[in-house]
Amino acid sequence: MKVIVVGATGTLGSAITADLKKDHEIVEVGFSDGDVKVDITDIESIKAMYQEIGEFDALVSATGAVHFGPLEDISQEQWQLGLNNKLMGQVNLVMEGAKHVNDGGSFTLTAGIISRDPIRYGTAATIVCNALEGFAASAALELPRGIRVNVVSPTILEESVELFGAAFAGSEPVPASVAAKAFRKSVDGARSGQTFTVQGRT
Amino acid sequence: MKVIVVGATGTLGSAITADLKKDHEIVEVGFSDGDVKVDITDIESIKAMYQEIGEFDALVSATGAVHFGPLEDISQEQWQLGLNNKLMGQVNLVMEGAKHVNDGGSFTLTAGIISRDPIRYGTAATIVCNALEGFAASAALELPRGIRVNVVSPTILEESVELFGAAFAGSEPVPASVAAKAFRKSVDGARSGQTFTVQGRT
Repeated sequence: MKVIVVGATGTLGSAITADLKKDHEIVEVGFSDGDVKVDITDIESIKAMYQEIGEFDALVSATGAVHFGPLEDISQEQWQLGLNNKLMGQVNLVMEGAKHVNDGGSFTLTAGIISRDPIRYGTAATIVCNALEGFAASAALELPRGIRVNVVSPTILEESVELFGAAFAGSEPVPASVAAKAFRKSVDGARSGQTFTVQGRT
Repeated sequence: MKVIVVGATGTLGSAITADLKKDHEIVEVGFSDGDVKVDITDIESIKAMYQEIGEFDALVSATGAVHFGPLEDISQEQWQLGLNNKLMGQVNLVMEGAKHVNDGGSFTLTAGIISRDPIRYGTAATIVCNALEGFAASAALELPRGIRVNVVSPTILEESVELFGAAFAGSEPVPASVAAKAFRKSVDGARSGQTFTVQGRT
């Protein structure tokens, strides 16, 4: 299959790409590097990306900015960051991509385990992760031509512990190479409308 | 207790008000009628509402606009309607209200059962309902002074079947007077960070 990976150079995206390229043709997409560039907050940029790539079979998104910080300090702009970027950016990847993807194609987005296991300072991110899980469940009811959509909600990655580990105190981290398997399940599998969680044992 | 009900004249809000006024002092708030008026999409209007009302013990929100329609036709403006109104409008009621509510006070917002039981044409609404459930779960971790926040996710109301029943085919409706009990559970109870679902038997 021809698989687009948006955010291909990130910690998670590079692990997903390394795994999927064993069996698939990968188009690496990034904001500032990759085979093709995209700004997911700009619908015209998304349209241009799909025009440039042409037909494809699956898209994996491992990208999306959100704000983390104390609840009482979150500004309107900080709430909107996640809603415009990680939420609507990924929603629009599906909405525009559904016009171009081959029959039976799939979309796999990245949410986060804080949808189910919320943490201090995470509210502006948690609402986005929950919204994405709802998007997959609901959009799957209406996507035509056998097109599928799923979300992966990973816990803290081993590679991110140094930067973000304190916020996820007590959550056993998972290597990005293991988290990548959940994306493989979505891309190569048959299910749609699902949230595939990636959790440690705690 | 002094309880603010936003959306007090709506189908659900009037049932909540009728129930809560048996034991509490109610301030009825609406967009175009009520003791006090508010536009929840305008943060300045929310601030003015709290200034006008002064100290209070609980706020119930039974308001919030969202778009329903076929997935492929949802415009950027229609996605934003729910994000700006039902989601951020209710989030901002809590964020501003937390500065004014008495110690141990509570906020109870309205999501919808399509967060867990999605329906055709409901995706722009479902993402908002899911986000609200995540908001309550996460914000509850950080609200100070014993302030609580919960969400109620009701199924289709008996009173709304004529208008919206077809979209909820097979879901047993619940009378608004029964749905109101879930808000009572939040206002008079002790729990926080919860989603109280209101479901029929199907």
